[in-house]
Amino acid sequence: MTALVTFGETMLRLSPPRGERLETARELEVQAGGAESNVAVAATRLGGDAAWFSKLPDSPLGRRIVGELRSHGVDTDGVVWTDDARQGVYYLEHGASPRPTNVVYDRADAAVTTLETGETDLDAVRDAEVCYTSGITPALSETLRETTADVLDAAQDAGTTTAFDLNYRTKLWSPEEAAEGYRALLGSVDLLFAAERDAATVLGRDGDAESVARGLAEDYGIETVVVTRGEEGSLAVSGGAVSEQGVYEAETRDAIGTGDAFVGGYLAKHLDGGSVAESLQWASATASLKRTVDGDIAVVNPEDVERVVADEGDGISR
Amino acid sequence: MTALVTFGETMLRLSPPRGERLETARELEVQAGGAESNVAVAATRLGGDAAWFSKLPDSPLGRRIVGELRSHGVDTDGVVWTDDARQGVYYLEHGASPRPTNVVYDRADAAVTTLETGETDLDAVRDAEVCYTSGITPALSETLRETTADVLDAAQDAGTTTAFDLNYRTKLWSPEEAAEGYRALLGSVDLLFAAERDAATVLGRDGDAESVARGLAEDYGIETVVVTRGEEGSLAVSGGAVSEQGVYEAETRDAIGTGDAFVGGYLAKHLDGGSVAESLQWASATASLKRTVDGDIAVVNPEDVERVVADEGDGISR
Amino acid sequence: MTALVTFGETMLRLSPPRGERLETARELEVQAGGAESNVAVAATRLGGDAAWFSKLPDSPLGRRIVGELRSHGVDTDGVVWTDDARQGVYYLEHGASPRPTNVVYDRADAAVTTLETGETDLDAVRDAEVCYTSGITPALSETLRETTADVLDAAQDAGTTTAFDLNYRTKLWSPEEAAEGYRALLGSVDLLFAAERDAATVLGRDGDAESVARGLAEDYGIETVVVTRGEEGSLAVSGGAVSEQGVYEAETRDAIGTGDAFVGGYLAKHLDGGSVAESLQWASATASLKRTVDGDIAVVNPEDVERVVADEGDGISR
Amino acid sequence: MTALVTFGETMLRLSPPRGERLETARELEVQAGGAESNVAVAATRLGGDAAWFSKLPDSPLGRRIVGELRSHGVDTDGVVWTDDARQGVYYLEHGASPRPTNVVYDRADAAVTTLETGETDLDAVRDAEVCYTSGITPALSETLRETTADVLDAAQDAGTTTAFDLNYRTKLWSPEEAAEGYRALLGSVDLLFAAERDAATVLGRDGDAESVARGLAEDYGIETVVVTRGEEGSLAVSGGAVSEQGVYEAETRDAIGTGDAFVGGYLAKHLDGGSVAESLQWASATASLKRTVDGDIAVVNPEDVERVVADEGDGISR
Amino acid sequence: MTALVTFGETMLRLSPPRGERLETARELEVQAGGAESNVAVAATRLGGDAAWFSKLPDSPLGRRIVGELRSHGVDTDGVVWTDDARQGVYYLEHGASPRPTNVVYDRADAAVTTLETGETDLDAVRDAEVCYTSGITPALSETLRETTADVLDAAQDAGTTTAFDLNYRTKLWSPEEAAEGYRALLGSVDLLFAAERDAATVLGRDGDAESVARGLAEDYGIETVVVTRGEEGSLAVSGGAVSEQGVYEAETRDAIGTGDAFVGGYLAKHLDGGSVAESLQWASATASLKRTVDGDIAVVNPEDVERVVADEGDGISR
Amino acid sequence: MTALVTFGETMLRLSPPRGERLETARELEVQAGGAESNVAVAATRLGGDAAWFSKLPDSPLGRRIVGELRSHGVDTDGVVWTDDARQGVYYLEHGASPRPTNVVYDRADAAVTTLETGETDLDAVRDAEVCYTSGITPALSETLRETTADVLDAAQDAGTTTAFDLNYRTKLWSPEEAAEGYRALLGSVDLLFAAERDAATVLGRDGDAESVARGLAEDYGIETVVVTRGEEGSLAVSGGAVSEQGVYEAETRDAIGTGDAFVGGYLAKHLDGGSVAESLQWASATASLKRTVDGDIAVVNPEDVERVVADEGDGISR
Ligand SMILES: [Ca+2]
Ligand SMILES: [Ca+2]
Ligand SMILES: [Ca+2]
Ligand SMILES: [Ca+2]
Ligand SMILES: [Ca+2]
Ligand SMILES: [Ca+2]
Ligand SMILES: [Ca+2]
Ligand SMILES: [Ca+2]
Ligand SMILES: [Ca+2]
Ligand SMILES: [Ca+2]
Ligand SMILES: [Ca+2]
Ligand SMILES: [Ca+2]
Ligand code: NI
Ligand code: NI
Ligand code: NI
Ligand code: NI
Ligand code: NI
Ligand code: NI
Ligand code: NI
Ligand code: NI
Ligand code: NI
Ligand code: NI
Ligand code: NI
Ligand code: NI
Ligand code: NI
Ligand code: NI
Ligand code: NI
Ligand code: NI
Ligand code: NI
Ligand code: NI
Repeated sequence: MTALVTFGETMLRLSPPRGERLETARELEVQAGGAESNVAVAATRLGGDAAWFSKLPDSPLGRRIVGELRSHGVDTDGVVWTDDARQGVYYLEHGASPRPTNVVYDRADAAVTTLETGETDLDAVRDAEVCYTSGITPALSETLRETTADVLDAAQDAGTTTAFDLNYRTKLWSPEEAAEGYRALLGSVDLLFAAERDAATVLGRDGDAESVARGLAEDYGIETVVVTRGEEGSLAVSGGAVSEQGVYEAETRDAIGTGDAFVGGYLAKHLDGGSVAESLQWASATASLKRTVDGDIAVVNPEDVERVVADEGDGISR
Repeated sequence: MTALVTFGETMLRLSPPRGERLETARELEVQAGGAESNVAVAATRLGGDAAWFSKLPDSPLGRRIVGELRSHGVDTDGVVWTDDARQGVYYLEHGASPRPTNVVYDRADAAVTTLETGETDLDAVRDAEVCYTSGITPALSETLRETTADVLDAAQDAGTTTAFDLNYRTKLWSPEEAAEGYRALLGSVDLLFAAERDAATVLGRDGDAESVARGLAEDYGIETVVVTRGEEGSLAVSGGAVSEQGVYEAETRDAIGTGDAFVGGYLAKHLDGGSVAESLQWASATASLKRTVDGDIAVVNPEDVERVVADEGDGISR
Repeated sequence: MTALVTFGETMLRLSPPRGERLETARELEVQAGGAESNVAVAATRLGGDAAWFSKLPDSPLGRRIVGELRSHGVDTDGVVWTDDARQGVYYLEHGASPRPTNVVYDRADAAVTTLETGETDLDAVRDAEVCYTSGITPALSETLRETTADVLDAAQDAGTTTAFDLNYRTKLWSPEEAAEGYRALLGSVDLLFAAERDAATVLGRDGDAESVARGLAEDYGIETVVVTRGEEGSLAVSGGAVSEQGVYEAETRDAIGTGDAFVGGYLAKHLDGGSVAESLQWASATASLKRTVDGDIAVVNPEDVERVVADEGDGISR
Repeated sequence: MTALVTFGETMLRLSPPRGERLETARELEVQAGGAESNVAVAATRLGGDAAWFSKLPDSPLGRRIVGELRSHGVDTDGVVWTDDARQGVYYLEHGASPRPTNVVYDRADAAVTTLETGETDLDAVRDAEVCYTSGITPALSETLRETTADVLDAAQDAGTTTAFDLNYRTKLWSPEEAAEGYRALLGSVDLLFAAERDAATVLGRDGDAESVARGLAEDYGIETVVVTRGEEGSLAVSGGAVSEQGVYEAETRDAIGTGDAFVGGYLAKHLDGGSVAESLQWASATASLKRTVDGDIAVVNPEDVERVVADEGDGISR
Repeated sequence: MTALVTFGETMLRLSPPRGERLETARELEVQAGGAESNVAVAATRLGGDAAWFSKLPDSPLGRRIVGELRSHGVDTDGVVWTDDARQGVYYLEHGASPRPTNVVYDRADAAVTTLETGETDLDAVRDAEVCYTSGITPALSETLRETTADVLDAAQDAGTTTAFDLNYRTKLWSPEEAAEGYRALLGSVDLLFAAERDAATVLGRDGDAESVARGLAEDYGIETVVVTRGEEGSLAVSGGAVSEQGVYEAETRDAIGTGDAFVGGYLAKHLDGGSVAESLQWASATASLKRTVDGDIAVVNPEDVERVVADEGDGISR
Repeated sequence: MTALVTFGETMLRLSPPRGERLETARELEVQAGGAESNVAVAATRLGGDAAWFSKLPDSPLGRRIVGELRSHGVDTDGVVWTDDARQGVYYLEHGASPRPTNVVYDRADAAVTTLETGETDLDAVRDAEVCYTSGITPALSETLRETTADVLDAAQDAGTTTAFDLNYRTKLWSPEEAAEGYRALLGSVDLLFAAERDAATVLGRDGDAESVARGLAEDYGIETVVVTRGEEGSLAVSGGAVSEQGVYEAETRDAIGTGDAFVGGYLAKHLDGGSVAESLQWASATASLKRTVDGDIAVVNPEDVERVVADEGDGISR
């Protein structure tokens, strides 16, 4: 039994060295990357005791994913293995202004798209304190849309807090499709993370962050809604009360995974009994630290987060 | 117009450093690899003026393939670009006895599987002296099976010599499926390359190399049949006459692509007016050199081949 | 026949990793780098169909150059091969303020310095729409000075637009030598690119950019003069009309080749029928993108340039 | 609860690229290496469900060790963390005949040398089927000598099979010291692995392998004694019965860890209910596979071992 | 005989690539790093003819240190070799705000901590113009505290200028211990370098830089006191006269070793007959250049420093 | 004053990773390589106290050479620096049978070719016990031919033992030119190293090794002649007495520099008072060890050589 259970797709992330383009690359760095496993890793590293499940090919590539997640302490016992489907991949080309960072997805027909409810360990979900997935999961297949609904439902019924990040991806579905997908799930969500831009683009919620959060909380009966606003910081409405949090500025090496680190930091503090305001602060500090590290994953420790929160500066420690 | 036109699938080849396994890899080396483009590269490098066509995603990954082939001088103007399909990939783990070299294919639904005859430039094929593909191509999709038949047919009708390598792949189809696939094509083939093992496994031809070659030549009306026997060398039956060729021993760095280098060396010499015996000798020398170089591709020059054929030794040249 | 023909020297560029100095280097990255081939690559990548010719040693080093240029689609059939001269090299040490980027040339007696007019394919030049070289070429040898004059002359006589970038290099000749060299050629130039600083240092033209451009246009009868002013942007005078263009700001990885990317972008748009103003805009966008990529070469695509011109931002595309 | 518990020191292994010497190295590859964790990893990867415990500094270096072991599925919950001691390191220079592979130990005062019995989780040991350590552990400190005795004792008392490998290291203690150390422990051992050379050098047992095994079994009341003889294979005496096993020849990349892989393969098969003969066969196959992989660790899967045992050849699998 | 003799500890510096954390590292870059050898290297490279002595293990690791220092021209003949102690190491993780650069020391019981006065070549010290060490040396062991006092004493008695940098390290001793250590030595110092922060933290000197310098000069009878103030520049009081120097701004790659480069630049100019003001200027320029280069060591040449001092800009030199 | 003085050309050696060809290389490894500095390094590392002089460009490339040689302890104070000539380079492509290792020289007009006698420090040569150069030096330029003669002459006149290796290079001069060059020098040689093949090809000496050695000794009045015969071992005739030495077999990583290591090992033992037979044995052992290390340079220590001579085996030392 773990305190946090997350599920979703984790891909191989393949990226050429900074300053090189994919179409001339000779070497690619390999990492595991996926929104929900990113959250599980961050939360586990920060003390949160997390599991992640998914469906993976029983191949060196699938084992490559599980090995990396386990190295950070994430429990992967719930992974479903198959001989009949492929491993999703994404190619990441680091940008530099005005050239954007470019992601080439090669995730169609990944094993996870065939994950059915009956294959999952719902008891682990029911025993957890928090169950998390993101809006990427239902976007991947019709099957996953059903599985996502079933899992969140089972969790909420069992008293597990359900957490969800909209995580809208334009390369996966249209705003209209996403809106429909989200609406089918939001009734089962207790803790929602929503980027201001996603709320506007997909759900048509355009006001200030607080009114967006209040609106979502009310319309879908969500206990806590956290709205993130990029460099403007974040805001939570929980049981009617508002908490605000600024960003910690970072020298950015790799922005991928920032949002997942934010959620992971939030959940770690939340599981540790932190208040909404304290959890937001950990979320923000973890997100900032993530940006200093290559890869999807927030390779951080509790001391790192505490140091940022305490604002102890960033000179050389010796 | 080029002297040789080849077509088929070319994949990204991703491989960890020697001594590392895929499931713990952090870095992958990238190359373009595909039987028919390997042949085109070897033939072009050895003076043969070749083109290769296929269907590729209009993405950095597809452009990555074309860039590498062009760097060796191969004409890629006939490539069909699409926004609707993916780039095939194969993962290569270098083995060391008793651990076999392992190939993990991720080529399902690659763009090339949708290549229809109508998309190809049959005039380029008709204008060429030789048109080459291998048994991998019809194994990839029903569409490709038809396209392969159409192209070989059009070539032969126009007086272009059609060349074909059985290239049986157990991970693509069963021996029975392959047998059916081959039989539908062999009537359109003028020059056949057949590994002794493929001829046995798929076509049930079990005698000595010469009788296998004679049998295939007669049964399918093939002008020249080259049977390769691994370390035993190779043998050709052409117009009834037999030529034999031993292997040149090599210190093997990377065995992938050896067979394609053999065909490429053969065709280069053939296009240059070489006899069957001379072409076999170039084939064998090119195959041997390929084994000393990392990657699918035979990065060789005519002087390299001439030196091997002349048996000038392999000390340090300074 | 290609729309654009460029000629000049292309060197091996050898550079240690960023943060390391040449005198302690253990590894050097290898690239092909040369002003005129940089222009050919940028123009070809952006749709311009270009060739480049030069004289190279018939060695692995010479073939290394040609292989890289061909990978980007540049036609190198006009290259003259020799067994009697060396490959030019330049060593590049990336700087960081206050340490300047340092270039160590080792290009004396490179094969290209012996390229005579009689060895070149003047018909390819006469058939092209544009023929380009830069002020580096006549600086390399007396022979090249004559060849440059002959080629530009032949081009202009045949109605091919002749394009030229002053490209003054202090390590190659003095301002006085350069002035004499330029003056011998400018009468044969239809489209001139001149850095404001070169125009001042070498040609003693000190006024504002517009008056410099008008002065050069009038004094040498040049149809279009483009003056580049670093971060101040660029300005063209063409048929008396003035066009101005700002720079697109870039996060610079590698500034080498910025000017060549500018010319390549200009020519690509020009060959596509763009106006002077549109060509300047593509020039500026291509130059900006170049700075984000390691190496001399602008590894860019038309969509990249269009995106910069449309100012679509530089976040993560996923 | 895990089926196998191992304990001992795991060091950072730092090694320059093959062909480079330590004293000119600029880059070192990092791995976790330790006899007992090597055994745990091999056994876990082969299905054996293992834990490893030790004492590590609560630092990035200590966490580096645990992360790598966890990635292979080893349970590290029993690790004792300290702020007061250092991480052991060993530097490995790959040899090539006649230059030996050289190991430079820097393990004095490592955290593990202070591990006391009271800090360990003896219940986990008592609940396991097998408890393993090697002769390196008692060689590291007086404290560890006592802890080793206590743990083996507690295990044996609880009915857990105690397994031990002599693993004599000349750089840690003299043959006389080792003999004394071993004798204090062998009475608590149920399953002994002894290299023929160690038995001779340290314990003065010089006869043929069978008589060495029988002698050790009788003198110390050990149920099963496995004697390994390098290229000569191995031999076990168990309950009086003898089993023999040859080596599987390997193309060796890295011989470090071969003995540990042997033990890991043996224990995995043993835990799975295999006979002594079957366990020896798995031991030998795992050892052979280890030699093909860089690093201390046998990155192997059950299918790999089965393939070697079935002698299916080592060509390319595609 | 060399003009400058320095002594102290030099460690192996092991650091993962920028953006990677120690606890997930697979590769570490290796360098020699130590305050006093950093000073010797900088001074030698800038023309100052320096020696460095210490005590090192007679192993590949100790030889690795000496080899790197010698490559820069430092005389290492005074090094004492031992078979009985280890090589100190430090692990360096590059930070990015808000994540600090982190140093993990593994230097306890390094060979140098056993260096006794009787093992050193005091004649070399007496013959030198300047003898330098830093506050790190006496912090390392009781033995070294005595040796440091003896050497500085012998130097001063012989008329050699003694130079000392406080170099307070929180991971080595407390402010109180350091204060006691410094006070035992300052009476033997002729030229003191003190970071403003160290003077405040350890010696309780809190006023402006000038008063700190004057106070230290008077209280300990030090001829010249240089106070460094980070980005605020530096100030020297020498014989009552004050000199001030600003910093040269740098694009920082690696801040480690900045202070040592400052001292090295100062001493090089001083040995060349420069005034205090000129020496400060070289100090500042050398420090600035150091920051642009990876590693502890200022890989700089006199021309680099002269260029910075002359403020010649930092474009591309070609 | 050093015991051994060597002089000649040292180049930058640039080589792609094993298995890659020069014409597709993206990265080159950098080393210093030159016959006479290779000898100086080997001799110094083995205790022989050596200097090397030459003429180098005062550039990062020239300093790169000197830095590497100094790192091994070679005295480079005699190097002559110039602003007017280039650094020689050689490109090395590792072969694998049947593809030979290929060397591409780019050494024409290197600074060393202008080294005149008047620029050298003849006193250092006269003070040395041994002065060494090889047949490459006079092959490089007319100037060097004279300088070589002058230096050997001055050495011999002063009682310094002059040592010389024929080192015939087909890419530098014809056998006839070499024969003339050698004959002009051999009268000044006291200790000659001659590969059997060079003696035959250039000097037309075809008999068995002993008669070749005796013939050369007599015809040119050479005290000691060492004839090397590749895998057949070596033979010396000194004062009429014959010594023979077999080769120590090696697992070859890099054969370049084997002959220089042989000479370096010989001279180190000779300077240490060894007999001809002992010196031959060290020569052979050093040559064998060199082959196990990447690069031109024998990174060896006296213990390594002693171990080979004592034939202590090549297992793992731990
Ligand atoms: Ca790069
Ligand atoms: Ca990285
Ligand atoms: Ca590699
Ligand atoms: Ca590796
Ligand atoms: Ca790498
Ligand atoms: Ca580096
Ligand atoms: Ca490398
Ligand atoms: Ca290397
Ligand atoms: Ca590296
Ligand atoms: Ca990396
Ligand atoms: Ca490679
Ligand atoms: Ca690299
Ligand atoms: Ni990256
Ligand atoms: Ni790289
Ligand atoms: Ni890397
Ligand atoms: Ni590979
Ligand atoms: Ni690598
Ligand atoms: Ni670079
Ligand atoms: Ni590197
Ligand atoms: Ni790189
Ligand atoms: Ni290794
Ligand atoms: Ni390397
Ligand atoms: Ni490397
Ligand atoms: Ni590596
Ligand atoms: Ni670094
Ligand atoms: Ni690497
Ligand atoms: Ni590196
Ligand atoms: Ni190499
Ligand atoms: Ni590499
Ligand atoms: Ni690389």
